[in-house]
Amino acid sequence: MIRFNCDYSEGAHPRILERLTQTNLEQSAGYGNDPYCRQAAEVIKTLCRCPRAEVHFLTGGTQTNLTVLAACSRPYQSIISAVSGHINVHEAGAIEATGHRIESLPEQYGKITASQISHFCKAHWEDDNPEFAPQPRTVYLSFPTEYGTLYSLQELQDIRHACDENHLFLFIDGARLGYGLTAPGNDVTLADIAALADVFYIGGTKIGALFGEAVVICNPKLQKDFRYFMKQKGGILAKGRLLGLQFLTLFEDNLYFEISKHANQMAERIKIACQHEGFAFLYESPTNQQFPILPNELLSQLEEIYAFAHIKRVDKTHTAIRICTSWATRPEDVDQLVADLHKFRRN
Amino acid sequence: MIRFNCDYSEGAHPRILERLTQTNLEQSAGYGNDPYCRQAAEVIKTLCRCPRAEVHFLTGGTQTNLTVLAACSRPYQSIISAVSGHINVHEAGAIEATGHRIESLPEQYGKITASQISHFCKAHWEDDNPEFAPQPRTVYLSFPTEYGTLYSLQELQDIRHACDENHLFLFIDGARLGYGLTAPGNDVTLADIAALADVFYIGGTKIGALFGEAVVICNPKLQKDFRYFMKQKGGILAKGRLLGLQFLTLFEDNLYFEISKHANQMAERIKIACQHEGFAFLYESPTNQQFPILPNELLSQLEEIYAFAHIKRVDKTHTAIRICTSWATRPEDVDQLVADLHKFRRN
Amino acid sequence: MIRFNCDYSEGAHPRILERLTQTNLEQSAGYGNDPYCRQAAEVIKTLCRCPRAEVHFLTGGTQTNLTVLAACSRPYQSIISAVSGHINVHEAGAIEATGHRIESLPEQYGKITASQISHFCKAHWEDDNPEFAPQPRTVYLSFPTEYGTLYSLQELQDIRHACDENHLFLFIDGARLGYGLTAPGNDVTLADIAALADVFYIGGTKIGALFGEAVVICNPKLQKDFRYFMKQKGGILAKGRLLGLQFLTLFEDNLYFEISKHANQMAERIKIACQHEGFAFLYESPTNQQFPILPNELLSQLEEIYAFAHIKRVDKTHTAIRICTSWATRPEDVDQLVADLHKFRRN
Amino acid sequence: MIRFNCDYSEGAHPRILERLTQTNLEQSAGYGNDPYCRQAAEVIKTLCRCPRAEVHFLTGGTQTNLTVLAACSRPYQSIISAVSGHINVHEAGAIEATGHRIESLPEQYGKITASQISHFCKAHWEDDNPEFAPQPRTVYLSFPTEYGTLYSLQELQDIRHACDENHLFLFIDGARLGYGLTAPGNDVTLADIAALADVFYIGGTKIGALFGEAVVICNPKLQKDFRYFMKQKGGILAKGRLLGLQFLTLFEDNLYFEISKHANQMAERIKIACQHEGFAFLYESPTNQQFPILPNELLSQLEEIYAFAHIKRVDKTHTAIRICTSWATRPEDVDQLVADLHKFRRN
Repeated sequence: MIRFNCDYSEGAHPRILERLTQTNLEQSAGYGNDPYCRQAAEVIKTLCRCPRAEVHFLTGGTQTNLTVLAACSRPYQSIISAVSGHINVHEAGAIEATGHRIESLPEQYGKITASQISHFCKAHWEDDNPEFAPQPRTVYLSFPTEYGTLYSLQELQDIRHACDENHLFLFIDGARLGYGLTAPGNDVTLADIAALADVFYIGGTKIGALFGEAVVICNPKLQKDFRYFMKQKGGILAKGRLLGLQFLTLFEDNLYFEISKHANQMAERIKIACQHEGFAFLYESPTNQQFPILPNELLSQLEEIYAFAHIKRVDKTHTAIRICTSWATRPEDVDQLVADLHKFRRN
Repeated sequence: MIRFNCDYSEGAHPRILERLTQTNLEQSAGYGNDPYCRQAAEVIKTLCRCPRAEVHFLTGGTQTNLTVLAACSRPYQSIISAVSGHINVHEAGAIEATGHRIESLPEQYGKITASQISHFCKAHWEDDNPEFAPQPRTVYLSFPTEYGTLYSLQELQDIRHACDENHLFLFIDGARLGYGLTAPGNDVTLADIAALADVFYIGGTKIGALFGEAVVICNPKLQKDFRYFMKQKGGILAKGRLLGLQFLTLFEDNLYFEISKHANQMAERIKIACQHEGFAFLYESPTNQQFPILPNELLSQLEEIYAFAHIKRVDKTHTAIRICTSWATRPEDVDQLVADLHKFRRN
Repeated sequence: MIRFNCDYSEGAHPRILERLTQTNLEQSAGYGNDPYCRQAAEVIKTLCRCPRAEVHFLTGGTQTNLTVLAACSRPYQSIISAVSGHINVHEAGAIEATGHRIESLPEQYGKITASQISHFCKAHWEDDNPEFAPQPRTVYLSFPTEYGTLYSLQELQDIRHACDENHLFLFIDGARLGYGLTAPGNDVTLADIAALADVFYIGGTKIGALFGEAVVICNPKLQKDFRYFMKQKGGILAKGRLLGLQFLTLFEDNLYFEISKHANQMAERIKIACQHEGFAFLYESPTNQQFPILPNELLSQLEEIYAFAHIKRVDKTHTAIRICTSWATRPEDVDQLVADLHKFRRN
Repeated sequence: MIRFNCDYSEGAHPRILERLTQTNLEQSAGYGNDPYCRQAAEVIKTLCRCPRAEVHFLTGGTQTNLTVLAACSRPYQSIISAVSGHINVHEAGAIEATGHRIESLPEQYGKITASQISHFCKAHWEDDNPEFAPQPRTVYLSFPTEYGTLYSLQELQDIRHACDENHLFLFIDGARLGYGLTAPGNDVTLADIAALADVFYIGGTKIGALFGEAVVICNPKLQKDFRYFMKQKGGILAKGRLLGLQFLTLFEDNLYFEISKHANQMAERIKIACQHEGFAFLYESPTNQQFPILPNELLSQLEEIYAFAHIKRVDKTHTAIRICTSWATRPEDVDQLVADLHKFRRN
């Protein structure tokens, strides 16, 4: 079985395992108070052009989202998200379990707009008794979105503006940040993200690490006491060094961006092959996730060889799937998939 | 600096890194739904002689404690723990953050007794309005305790009996379980733990793994829907395979117990050396943590070379420290420490 | 200013104040352990034809909803509600603050259907990883709804059936229960409600009491330890007697139903007057809340004399309002409103 | 049965019922947005000599404590309390249910000291990893304490000083505030309380009201968005007017203080009678709660006529009880108790 169902089927980029092996018996301070974490944080701050930022390392996406959003919110405050946002659909109520309501807005291609945000806040504050609804405090969005789509720089700037006007924090979930930043047509840089967001994270789990997400807290208000949140949520790794070392490796020699680009190129080839075969797509994505709509018959044949994620039945004879590449996707597997798409299609 | 301050200064047992490297580019299903996790679970169930158990893998101790205790408790229920229990002192209020009160009982050498538990429950239920206090539901204890001490089999059986009489779950925190099971004088087996506890965990982070704790749920009542708790608390690792593989390696060829025994032997040598020098101990521990009381002057000299954890000032001229060995402690480092203890003592 | 903006503008039915005054200096046990609470509970159980029920008294609607739903749910479980449900829009995130997600379904006239519920649950359980979303556990609905509309007996029976098939509790919010039960065309009885719901409450605050809601727990599973929930949420009134006495008074001589019917009749008169004038309604309601759509100009004139609740701007020249009557609405105030509707309309 | 077991056995001071009856059919805005609440707030601010304060009305003590402490705390912050503090022993884990740990300090006569507080905070901040324990943020104390004892002005000033030095809020639970302020020997005024506390409440439930506590928020930092907390915790009463009206009545003509003094005088007479008979006391209390230690035989005889609260068995033949008077205690009941103490003692 060749897996295209997600971007975390393999282990880590080999350089990471090498570094872990080389340094394995070194002794270091626990809980992230080690030189690797410090160095990785410095490198990230430099890349983000945000020297005042603080960087912390957590092990996974749900943990990161729930910890960051707890830090953003007083108990009566809510988070604004696209209805398709990861926190709204795939995290088992992790945010609500910290006591906060997610106010979900309709999305277009996985994205929400500045004007939706402003409109929502205006309605809240104009109510006779605003305190009868949670107070909006943070905008959550993903770059790329769950559908592989990207916000343009202009869209993000507009959202930032809406956040400023409405006293909102902006939190950008970058579980697949590298895939977004290196996508064809993207006009947003890492420094832009750092300049626009109050807090965001750089995903490692889906881009080359065994596990790990680097939280970059740009807004000093959110920096205070963040490690209390991390500890309380079970998010401080005893051997924190493992996280520092992985991110240090990923950000040496541009590795993070190189391997991200690779995944996008692999996805692009699959996309073109699908277009060639005349398949429609559920969303137009320039990143490592593609959402072609396939005839069920073809899909059945492919699924004897490949694993995909089913997204939804489009009609009686067609199904939209997600095909996911990653830093680890082998070109020969893509060759084979492209060939099989063509071959099965012809039969 | 040679670190004796904790048991998580190094990476993983080399066999684990080898296995991770060998299997690195294998593709597997995420979230623990992979063959390694399944195999590791089977091995653990066999070792525990508890075929009906369910085994889940989490990444760290605080995460494990808060997830398990959430699963044990309705919102109005409390956890009984020694005042020195890890959840009561070192987890940033993680348990309270899930809504539950910890009822802390006075400890002796880190341990609580069956009769304390029964007495506490009796007082609760005899109150005119029991509902004006949280309802005791779970007993939390550690094996070994925070002070390196061990419950005897009889003590655990008595506690089990008290739990049965008072409708309590028994949760055993085994962050250092291997160090306890292989300690000289210990009369408790892994199968005993599984037979007595409703749920417990086998610590990997402190005994040979990069990270990871294996939760063994013996009581079927606690098995239902446990993965919802894991997910909601951010505790399902995307590449769950990493956890399964580590525990599979640890439980091959008795490795877990061999390396645990090694740590205890290293600690024993330090203990004997301290006794030789006439130092008293804060607690009498047969495991990898030793708590000698050292003259401050000697301590200052040693701390130019070695890292220890300070526990408390005993008097103006003496300080109790914790010396911690681990699976990774090098005999030559212990030799040197023993020699230095003697040497500095003489000066 | 004559208030038609809500149904809690006045104090209590005079008989209640009389009883409070008569018994004021009696001494009684606190926290609801008094004879009045016991008697009121018995009377309610008899009226509900549900001898196995348990009845508890709380002071307000939000408190009742959050306490009952906490009792229905494990931490990873969610509540299904109409998007217009009170808990989803007017309670400041009180439910989420207890850790639970509300899954909101589209409503029609404030109501949801059995098939929506079944469909939602089916989707949950068919997911590859159901534990990545909260587990649906309770259906919340109001009788009457926020829009004054009513479920028919058949609709409620269908929902009960869907709940049974999907292992869901059914919780009926009866803040305005009396207004629903006595509405023209209603075919649901109090005994039906008790037979169909696992738990529901009979609203006192909006129907004749100073304050107070009577929670009727029909399902024994939800009865256990309910007072712990009440106490923990701050919901046990020290002088619980005040609640028992009020409900006892309301359920003597059919008072609760008489005064409910009065409110409906007052509303009916206003409704007919609006129809006469040719106004459309946002919802067709047979109960004490009416939602006519008025020309803005007329509304401005009326609002110099009357208080209404604005619901929404329908178009540039029309606004939908809520007109609310209650047990305390004076016929002469309705006369005047009807006259003014006609008079201002003509100008 | 004559009840001396608590101070909430009766209804309200008759003047309150009169006012409720007089105003019963007045229409007013809901949720505390009415003239009575506004006036009561003004009166209280004037009495407190704290014009910048905000005053809110809640229905009961547990609700007040959990709402105020939620407003004082970020998720990782804890509350310092005497081990005997009401929140620590009699509120079903209500504070922990909002996610916060209570750090309980040993008490002397129900009180804690400034130096205990400072010592605790110092230990927290000197830890190598302070974030491994909850961060102390608020000191909770009661005036009078659970044992009827009082802090002196000097003690409170010292505690305020310790709070300032350690960045702590001071919250004073005044469930029985009137009984404290009017006690013989007390040197603390209402204005002192307002000057020293960041937030406190004036208890109505136990001093003349049907129910109700007036929260006085002196520190502007805690004022912001407090109504969101109230709503989310189910603490905004629909007919808020009931609370405003009660407090307005209590603070007219010094009523609150007159009836408090009455209770203290009644208690004083019982105290003197006990002293006369040679009984020891568990605590020396100048307020409405007395804790004499009675011979079990005498107690049995008394309990055929009077209700008391048992506090603890002192030895085989003696039991400490709580005798509680209130604003409603009848002098003739005290006469009878005093006589019976003497009479039964002689037999």
